[in-house]
Amino acid sequence: MQTVLYPEKNTWEALCQRPQLPVADLESLTCQIFDEISKKGDDAVKKYTGFFDGVIPENLQLNEDEITKGAAKISTELKEAIQLAKANIEAFHAIQKEQKKSVETTPGVSCWRENRAIDKVGIYIPGGSAPLFSTVLMLAIPAKIAGCKEIVLCTPPNKKGNVNSAILYAAQLTGITKIYRIGGIQAIGAMTLGTETIPKTYKIFGPGNQYVTAAKQTALSYGVAIDLPAGPSELLVIADSTANPEYVAADLLSQAEHGPDSQVVLLSDNKEIISKTAKALTKQVNTLPRKEITLKALNNSKAILLSDLAECIAFSNLYAPEHLIIASDNAENYIDDVTNAGSVFLGNYSCESAGDYASGTNHTLPTNGYATSYSGVSVDSFIKKITFQKITREGLQNIGPAIEVMAAAEQLEAHKNAVSIRLKDISNE
Amino acid sequence: MQTVLYPEKNTWEALCQRPQLPVADLESLTCQIFDEISKKGDDAVKKYTGFFDGVIPENLQLNEDEITKGAAKISTELKEAIQLAKANIEAFHAIQKEQKKSVETTPGVSCWRENRAIDKVGIYIPGGSAPLFSTVLMLAIPAKIAGCKEIVLCTPPNKKGNVNSAILYAAQLTGITKIYRIGGIQAIGAMTLGTETIPKTYKIFGPGNQYVTAAKQTALSYGVAIDLPAGPSELLVIADSTANPEYVAADLLSQAEHGPDSQVVLLSDNKEIISKTAKALTKQVNTLPRKEITLKALNNSKAILLSDLAECIAFSNLYAPEHLIIASDNAENYIDDVTNAGSVFLGNYSCESAGDYASGTNHTLPTNGYATSYSGVSVDSFIKKITFQKITREGLQNIGPAIEVMAAAEQLEAHKNAVSIRLKDISNE
Repeated sequence: MQTVLYPEKNTWEALCQRPQLPVADLESLTCQIFDEISKKGDDAVKKYTGFFDGVIPENLQLNEDEITKGAAKISTELKEAIQLAKANIEAFHAIQKEQKKSVETTPGVSCWRENRAIDKVGIYIPGGSAPLFSTVLMLAIPAKIAGCKEIVLCTPPNKKGNVNSAILYAAQLTGITKIYRIGGIQAIGAMTLGTETIPKTYKIFGPGNQYVTAAKQTALSYGVAIDLPAGPSELLVIADSTANPEYVAADLLSQAEHGPDSQVVLLSDNKEIISKTAKALTKQVNTLPRKEITLKALNNSKAILLSDLAECIAFSNLYAPEHLIIASDNAENYIDDVTNAGSVFLGNYSCESAGDYASGTNHTLPTNGYATSYSGVSVDSFIKKITFQKITREGLQNIGPAIEVMAAAEQLEAHKNAVSIRLKDISNE
Repeated sequence: MQTVLYPEKNTWEALCQRPQLPVADLESLTCQIFDEISKKGDDAVKKYTGFFDGVIPENLQLNEDEITKGAAKISTELKEAIQLAKANIEAFHAIQKEQKKSVETTPGVSCWRENRAIDKVGIYIPGGSAPLFSTVLMLAIPAKIAGCKEIVLCTPPNKKGNVNSAILYAAQLTGITKIYRIGGIQAIGAMTLGTETIPKTYKIFGPGNQYVTAAKQTALSYGVAIDLPAGPSELLVIADSTANPEYVAADLLSQAEHGPDSQVVLLSDNKEIISKTAKALTKQVNTLPRKEITLKALNNSKAILLSDLAECIAFSNLYAPEHLIIASDNAENYIDDVTNAGSVFLGNYSCESAGDYASGTNHTLPTNGYATSYSGVSVDSFIKKITFQKITREGLQNIGPAIEVMAAAEQLEAHKNAVSIRLKDISNE
């Protein structure tokens, strides 16, 4: 971890730069696979599953028996943990459903918005070494609360053609019934285009490797929406003298273990906290099974000493971290000052892994500085807000003349005429 | 207008297809101009303003005097119309600001969301023949209600280097002070990258021609968010026997006059309404100054006879129109059935041009079928919702063991350890 002491303000922007990662140009590959899926459907999906995952499944969709038997395989302890997480995630997302509010902007002119679920959504869950069953909860729960009618889940099979049991349990618990053993580009392509067995969806959610990321970009060009732009996971910790360096180190490591490209930043107004955290990092990292990955991530990371907490918050707002921990007994004093972040953890007991799994907040969040303009996934991500208006005769008499004047000034006579033809009738009545 | 009688359900999807428009490949041009702006700043912006707009402005930014004098030039009648529209748009958008709701998901675990305005936003307003001052209201008002700190407005100059007076008046009325006389790719590039005089922004809003659309795509690849994917404007009218064919024709024409690529669809369960509307269209179109454009748009448009209103609504949901008028005295009976639309106009006096200008709803809406997954612009478009959590010792004792089990099952030991290290301390206290 590189330490930077009292950097000049004009260097902050450079310090906030994420390392530029080499991006493989996979566009022609994704376009080729999408094109083949549009022409050959399931056959193309099976072919590429054989090619990328080393297995050609007879049935792409899991049947009820496979889901039930697979889901039953995990331990009772893990089932209960997932149940607890589900209850908390549900409780937090349930309060996000907005009530209808109507306003009469002018007598006779009523305007309001109504929530409508996105009819068909796709959820992608990576398989591989770490099965992200927690992401099933984070996407399926808000989709269900929003009221999405068709929820499609794709996740890659192992070499035997099976799907991870914890993923199946989380899917079953959240009421997902359409589960397909496909991954990568072919999964995103199938949910974009639809095949004989896999429904076409309107919006695709979920994390993935560079192939999945490239395929989601291609999906966008086919008119399908996606959850968020992709980027490596990030954590910024602001620690003052009341922080516990052992906890700060543990939190930084929990982010660093995600991958060698994970971003970890420590800000403090206290030199001792930084040096103690560095020591704790060195000690704790040795106990980790993913030590090699974690050390690579720490190599890219920075500890920055600033003059006070106000500067730390200002720097954090410029960086716009995915996750922000304010490791201070006085964390709540700084809430109003945080303007750019995906999710904020207050105090010395609010560790980031709580939000990753079980406190209730969503873990699908904006990375790579996108917290300046994007929110994380919520029930909002699964709904559209449609505006409605009802104008009475009286209402049109009240606002019609203004519309006529404005339309004429924009040289849109037919817009004006749509009002004039009605007002004429009303005045002749 | 092509008439289709009782089409089979399996043909509906094809009937919903928008015509594929030839898209010029402008990516290399936009990338070249963005690159030049990143290196040469204002000089590059001026150079391309000279090239595309035929004028090289001395000062890119309008000063206060220019804004005030320009804004004063429009008629009192137009000023009053814009004021009325502003009041209604403000009233409707003010109710969109959500109140903070907190939930204790587990004793000791509090989670909530806080709204934060996007700090810096850019508004693009096309100039040219029809100055879209109404779009200034539709974007500046929600930006102000959201609390955006820096709002940048770019609009192209005329050959004399001046900006349209109605645009200046709308900007002044809504409190926009940073106005730049630049348009097209160079405007979007400047708001993406920032120059000596034009601030870099985090999200860019507003309509435009193919150059602006291409530049907004390039802005996305630079990490700047945009409002909505672009597409030609659309109107679908559902008319039953209680509709007035003259009004329906006037509404269809108000959409068709936007451009030759505008989409217009009429659905009805009543053959007579369709034939009477067709006659009214032929009569009314002759009176329009934009007759040529309008006739071209009508050539691409369809009137479809279906068996009942339920079928009309189902077809409309599949089409997912930007604007939907339900021209029926019983329009309110169908509200709950509408699942995909940008903005809905209920009854025979709610003409679409009311929503374009003055009823209060926003006119920046999803086109091209994107109403399946996107909402129109609202206060939400100018804010992020940041999740916060505060976990106490007791809270961590309650949810910590579940996090440990889940993290271990995802093979993320450092995530587990961030909890374990704290729980150990708590149990030793």
